[in-house]
Amino acid sequence: MSDRSKVVRVFAPATVANLGPGFDVLGLAVEGIGDVVTARLAGTGGVTIAAIEGDAGALTRDPRANTAGIAAIETLKRAGVDASIELFIEKGMPLGSGLGSSAASAAAAAMAVNLLVGSPLRKTDLVGPCVEAEAVVSGRHADNVAPSMLGGLILVRSVDPLDLVRLPVPLGLTVVVVTPDFEVPTREARAALPSDVPLSRLVEQTANVAAIVSACYSGNLALLGRSVRDEVVTPARTALIPGGAQVIEAALDAGAVASSISGAGPSIFALCRSVRSAKKTAEAMSCAFETAGLGSVTLTSPADCPGARRI
Amino acid sequence: MSDRSKVVRVFAPATVANLGPGFDVLGLAVEGIGDVVTARLAGTGGVTIAAIEGDAGALTRDPRANTAGIAAIETLKRAGVDASIELFIEKGMPLGSGLGSSAASAAAAAMAVNLLVGSPLRKTDLVGPCVEAEAVVSGRHADNVAPSMLGGLILVRSVDPLDLVRLPVPLGLTVVVVTPDFEVPTREARAALPSDVPLSRLVEQTANVAAIVSACYSGNLALLGRSVRDEVVTPARTALIPGGAQVIEAALDAGAVASSISGAGPSIFALCRSVRSAKKTAEAMSCAFETAGLGSVTLTSPADCPGARRI
Repeated sequence: MSDRSKVVRVFAPATVANLGPGFDVLGLAVEGIGDVVTARLAGTGGVTIAAIEGDAGALTRDPRANTAGIAAIETLKRAGVDASIELFIEKGMPLGSGLGSSAASAAAAAMAVNLLVGSPLRKTDLVGPCVEAEAVVSGRHADNVAPSMLGGLILVRSVDPLDLVRLPVPLGLTVVVVTPDFEVPTREARAALPSDVPLSRLVEQTANVAAIVSACYSGNLALLGRSVRDEVVTPARTALIPGGAQVIEAALDAGAVASSISGAGPSIFALCRSVRSAKKTAEAMSCAFETAGLGSVTLTSPADCPGARRI
Repeated sequence: MSDRSKVVRVFAPATVANLGPGFDVLGLAVEGIGDVVTARLAGTGGVTIAAIEGDAGALTRDPRANTAGIAAIETLKRAGVDASIELFIEKGMPLGSGLGSSAASAAAAAMAVNLLVGSPLRKTDLVGPCVEAEAVVSGRHADNVAPSMLGGLILVRSVDPLDLVRLPVPLGLTVVVVTPDFEVPTREARAALPSDVPLSRLVEQTANVAAIVSACYSGNLALLGRSVRDEVVTPARTALIPGGAQVIEAALDAGAVASSISGAGPSIFALCRSVRSAKKTAEAMSCAFETAGLGSVTLTSPADCPGARRI
């Protein structure tokens, strides 16, 4: 166990989940934005959240209702450690943007707490506590928390029990994420989902996700482009985003390999074959949002980025 | 073009489709059984079927209703060739066994006809005519015709337009197929399918198919075993096969990596890590069918076999 003066700061990255047809199944970490959680042994009575910055007061400091708090509590529970820990949360991305904001806070908190108490759990074991946290605020899924914790492109084969597969990322593949000044709460985006899908759609969807995985291993970007296609989730969610369809079209017209909604939206991602192509794509996407009357922030990142880490 | 005395004989193998969750999406060729189609320039008025052997009189000789005939007609049409061709079909597997019987006839016929008229089409272009043939008798799917034509393990990303991806097969992987003396017509098996599935099942299914593809590239047989799981199609089809659930259980108990229904059934396949394991598995599966009162025929084959070929 650590001394009481010890402080651990952890950064966990934003994530792009779904990648088109991989609803609740695929997610990848990006670089450049994410959340920072600082943990220190302090106070009494378990986990407390001392302060949250960058959320404009939107998030609760109740540790049982905030994903950082829940992930911290679950981490201690699974480690069998009884400690009183204060968390300081610095939000580095807009809430409800489809970039896994709640997941990044959870991942950073779980890792910070684990390090603080002497790393009783392995990094892969920290994904479970984050899933519990996500379950409270946005549904029981791991496609944001797993890549935020572990980095790279992760396939979530199963949530219960947790079964994660790291997929290779084609060399040079670059992600563009454009986030408009417009909020879609995750719950609302999930409410737009169909409860059932026809069997024919299931066949399309399994085929496309399978082809994405094949394309990642083989580096076949043309196949990747053909496979990032989704008629189950994306149409309903695109309709919630002003200019959404036009932004995706602009990305493809600018030469992106693929483009779709990031997570629950409203952020839209594109996969590009190079940094150069990504820059051109980012401009086109940003322009398309502007035409729809929305300002936006663009991010360009390698598609294969590290996950949560001490800073 | 060829002289009128020329005769072409082609063998096309049986196939195991679906592989659990890959309904209409995954299929692989096996060796040892299949259909033979002999084609020769003869008669007038397009394609005729001169004789069918091994079907106990069950199949029609109407070329527009028999998959070999339809595939032959479509092949000539796509090649832009006007020829009168006689087909002789030798069925090498039981009908309605879930081994792609109609697909093997189509593949053999398409290839034989193409060779006979001087190979105007590439082998991959011959899958399309076979899909048209399947569409008439058992639904518009390519997961039997594609591996029967091309060999190996094939992912059908899309049927319209046809988009096929060859997947690698883990070294040494061996397939066991056990066919009971019991017929499930493909149409009946397809009628047992649900018309819709809940979104949560879609997530499970995409995740498992994605993991199968990953396991094929990485050679991770444990992952392959966990991923050949299907709650959408297999339960309804297993219920149509006396002893079906017990045979799958027997395969897994005997050490098979995975086991499920082959195509529409009633054949049941198992994937095994070696020929030795496959032999043990085949015996256990055959025994389980016997306990259910059914005789059966077993087949052991490498999981990576060639497709249709001239003999």
